[in-house]
Amino acid sequence: MKKYYIGIDIGGTYTKVGVLTKAFDIIGKASLPTSSYKSPQRLISAVSRAAGLLLKSRNITKTAVYGVGVGIAGLVDAEKGVIKNLINIPGYRGFNIKRAFEKEFGLSVCADNDANAMALAEFHKGAGRGGTNIVCVTLGTGVGGGIIIGGRLYRGSTSSAGELGHIPINMKGQRCNCGGTACIETYAGNNYIAGRLKGALKRRIGRPGMAARTLAADAAPKLLYEAAKDGDRSALELWEEIGAEIGVMLAGVINLLDPDRVVIGGGIADAGRFLFSPIKKTVRSRAMKSKRRIKIVKARLGKDAGLVGAAMLARLERTKWL
Amino acid sequence: MKKYYIGIDIGGTYTKVGVLTKAFDIIGKASLPTSSYKSPQRLISAVSRAAGLLLKSRNITKTAVYGVGVGIAGLVDAEKGVIKNLINIPGYRGFNIKRAFEKEFGLSVCADNDANAMALAEFHKGAGRGGTNIVCVTLGTGVGGGIIIGGRLYRGSTSSAGELGHIPINMKGQRCNCGGTACIETYAGNNYIAGRLKGALKRRIGRPGMAARTLAADAAPKLLYEAAKDGDRSALELWEEIGAEIGVMLAGVINLLDPDRVVIGGGIADAGRFLFSPIKKTVRSRAMKSKRRIKIVKARLGKDAGLVGAAMLARLERTKWL
Repeated sequence: MKKYYIGIDIGGTYTKVGVLTKAFDIIGKASLPTSSYKSPQRLISAVSRAAGLLLKSRNITKTAVYGVGVGIAGLVDAEKGVIKNLINIPGYRGFNIKRAFEKEFGLSVCADNDANAMALAEFHKGAGRGGTNIVCVTLGTGVGGGIIIGGRLYRGSTSSAGELGHIPINMKGQRCNCGGTACIETYAGNNYIAGRLKGALKRRIGRPGMAARTLAADAAPKLLYEAAKDGDRSALELWEEIGAEIGVMLAGVINLLDPDRVVIGGGIADAGRFLFSPIKKTVRSRAMKSKRRIKIVKARLGKDAGLVGAAMLARLERTKWL
Repeated sequence: MKKYYIGIDIGGTYTKVGVLTKAFDIIGKASLPTSSYKSPQRLISAVSRAAGLLLKSRNITKTAVYGVGVGIAGLVDAEKGVIKNLINIPGYRGFNIKRAFEKEFGLSVCADNDANAMALAEFHKGAGRGGTNIVCVTLGTGVGGGIIIGGRLYRGSTSSAGELGHIPINMKGQRCNCGGTACIETYAGNNYIAGRLKGALKRRIGRPGMAARTLAADAAPKLLYEAAKDGDRSALELWEEIGAEIGVMLAGVINLLDPDRVVIGGGIADAGRFLFSPIKKTVRSRAMKSKRRIKIVKARLGKDAGLVGAAMLARLERTKWL
């Protein structure tokens, strides 16, 4: 009897693989360093071996697995399973990841954007439970998103809906990786936060130790959070600015989609009140009056959202459940 | 046998009423000056009398009418039929227009935002035909919009989705009627275009005749169009600016919703290439690369879109057709 899903979450730094029950509880997981595999095919072979070992350690045979879901940190044509764009991991564009995994596993595979997977996970098992129309934002190296409409994942006409990170918040601004200009990602993506933090530190005296550190992009939000906790004024101001920028983007999304809830996840969401308070304040002053009391909540599934959502993608593929 | 719909389109200046066939062809219509009626109830009585006369002139009995649809230039709770906000027509907020019309007609009534009605009309009978996910923008005194998702009108969680006019395009800018700041309506709404046109005229020599005219808001786009046709540089530049601003707003909407088509209607859409060319140019440079070839087309139903869409609202109410 089929009782399990395999979930795979391919990120710029780590690729995770997990075995999940049909209630989407993780009963085993492993992690591989994405960039140490020289080609997509090698990564896929390694992931498949890891999945095989996880199944074996639990005495689960492949015949007991419903299917495999893959969330990827980029644009994916969910129908064909082809990676359209993967900015932070070179060598994957045009690769048919669905077909490659299907060969390895002999099981049906569903691949989609990782923010779509996260939105599914939060909607069915996390902070989006009980909603109908929800918008999820993930704040990380990139700013991503997923949209649930009428209780179903909304993918758009070319499998690339939900790109909240690429909503412009100014007429003029920095060029974005997507080819656009002044997208919210160029304000709130980790690389940009790192740049702004460096700028802020240069402009003032004090905390010379901080300025001296090499500032890795994904360390920036944490550093900024620690500084804000210490009461550092520049850090607090920078969070205010970032929150206001995300808030303006969300005000537009809320006016457009009128969702019942906005779920915010990803690394910098851990900044808690430093981030959520200016976001909420901005939405309350910039969204249309009738929509200002919308719930803006933190994602609940944390780092497991990717695996849970990937497994849900597999269920979606099999049963058209969502 | 039921064969007809009554469509009603309540605008800031005129209220139109029409009788339509079940194929949504208009077979009779009338127009009333909205503001000359001192209360919503008086307007509704006059509209009902006009509808009665239209039916009578065609020898149609009320029993042959499926239902009544009402499109209104404001926010409407489509479920209850209550007007939530009607910025340009005072005295209507909180009024249950569905119930009032149901009393007059003894028929089921469906009321909704006029941009939602227009989106339905363009989707089923106009420039949106053949699409699946489409976004409609109406450019007039206000900037409105309607969203069709999966072939159905998307209303959102509180009946107020599709408010494209209230997407901010800058962090800072003018206060908007909606309570927000820097919404696209504060750049491309008729009143704002009139203000910008006056400003442009003040700043330069020549065309003193134009500057001297009292510039009614709804005349501004036409005047600006005529000046652009004459090759007036300030006018051409102003269209470039307005088109770029609408284009940046649309780039965000396209990245978020990944529609297969954008339909642009309303008064200033008549500016044709002066408007469409900078809009398309901006979308091609600001939207994500894979989405830049999206179809951006002019609405086809013109001033009848409101009546056609209103009748479709009635069908939607009756049959859950859409």
